[in-house]
Amino acid sequence: MATPSVDFFYEFASTYSYPAAMRIGEVAEAAGVVVRWRPFLLGPIFAEAGWTTSPFNLIPAKGRNMWRDLERTTAAMGLPFRKPDPFPQNSLLAARIATALPDDGKRAAFSKEVYRTEFGEGRSIADPDVIGTILKRLGIEPATLIVAAGSEANKQALRATTEEAKARGLFGAPSIVTSGGELFWGNDRVEQAVAWAKAHA
Amino acid sequence: MATPSVDFFYEFASTYSYPAAMRIGEVAEAAGVVVRWRPFLLGPIFAEAGWTTSPFNLIPAKGRNMWRDLERTTAAMGLPFRKPDPFPQNSLLAARIATALPDDGKRAAFSKEVYRTEFGEGRSIADPDVIGTILKRLGIEPATLIVAAGSEANKQALRATTEEAKARGLFGAPSIVTSGGELFWGNDRVEQAVAWAKAHA
Repeated sequence: MATPSVDFFYEFASTYSYPAAMRIGEVAEAAGVVVRWRPFLLGPIFAEAGWTTSPFNLIPAKGRNMWRDLERTTAAMGLPFRKPDPFPQNSLLAARIATALPDDGKRAAFSKEVYRTEFGEGRSIADPDVIGTILKRLGIEPATLIVAAGSEANKQALRATTEEAKARGLFGAPSIVTSGGELFWGNDRVEQAVAWAKAHA
Repeated sequence: MATPSVDFFYEFASTYSYPAAMRIGEVAEAAGVVVRWRPFLLGPIFAEAGWTTSPFNLIPAKGRNMWRDLERTTAAMGLPFRKPDPFPQNSLLAARIATALPDDGKRAAFSKEVYRTEFGEGRSIADPDVIGTILKRLGIEPATLIVAAGSEANKQALRATTEEAKARGLFGAPSIVTSGGELFWGNDRVEQAVAWAKAHA
């Protein structure tokens, strides 16, 4: 039997990617499932649907429920919560940095810190100083990483992940795709996705 | 302490209202929470968002995932599943009949049979013969009910429920509102809504 794995596709501007990122590692580890951390951009996918901003802004009642539900969800998990302003945040810098980091634990650690800063403290993740502080806290030299993140090869890698996400049927975040190609959408599907990956490895 | 209760707002064309309707009674009963069955129409609420059909049709990737997810969800619950064609079904007749039935168990029983017929057998719930067969099976004379359902007072009662749903912040179905006014959206929130109603009664 091959080691079961899932691709965890997340977008830094996505609200429910916050609780999912905070717990998927633990849920997967308990089941012996490997997680690949796949940062991507939802903007190009939303643009194809004709949306210029988050559907949570386009449908105000849906947005009001989402913020309240996220507050309940994070409270139940013991996570801090504070709504960032503006929403959605520009997530390009964070996504490029995450792409440039190796997926050996550093990318996951950086990503979780970004989410905590954005949705736990309500701070701007488009601010290079905020991102730099997160990198330093993780023992990574910001200057080197910011140069690597801006390289053509790295930008292209992020575009390729976004293309792959679209090709695999993604329409929102977080999404989890098992090694067998089964797609699960949302923080509410973390357990099912991991169980499916394990059962069908 | 008042008896905790929830209003279960459902739309007969709504896919996830099927599994929610099939289990909310049992989940609530186990917690000592009363369920009020509130059939309403999503059409007028979707129309305000500029949608002329289900968002699952407007965003094909979202629709593909929903059907697959519903298949997994119903399989896990041991419920039959078959996609109705066309989707969404015209739900007006079923909603009027459900409104005309008393909420003393008959409305719930009828509603569950409609969902099973629609999403378990893939049959048309816009067909008066299909609805008539369901009523007969429940020991209710179809002719009497169909006349009552078409009365001005009953049509107005359904419009009033839809207006109330909108006023309480609903934007989709199923939605559950606790006696304290807390809104939960989706089949995935049945347990939380019931627990909230009990904790805050």
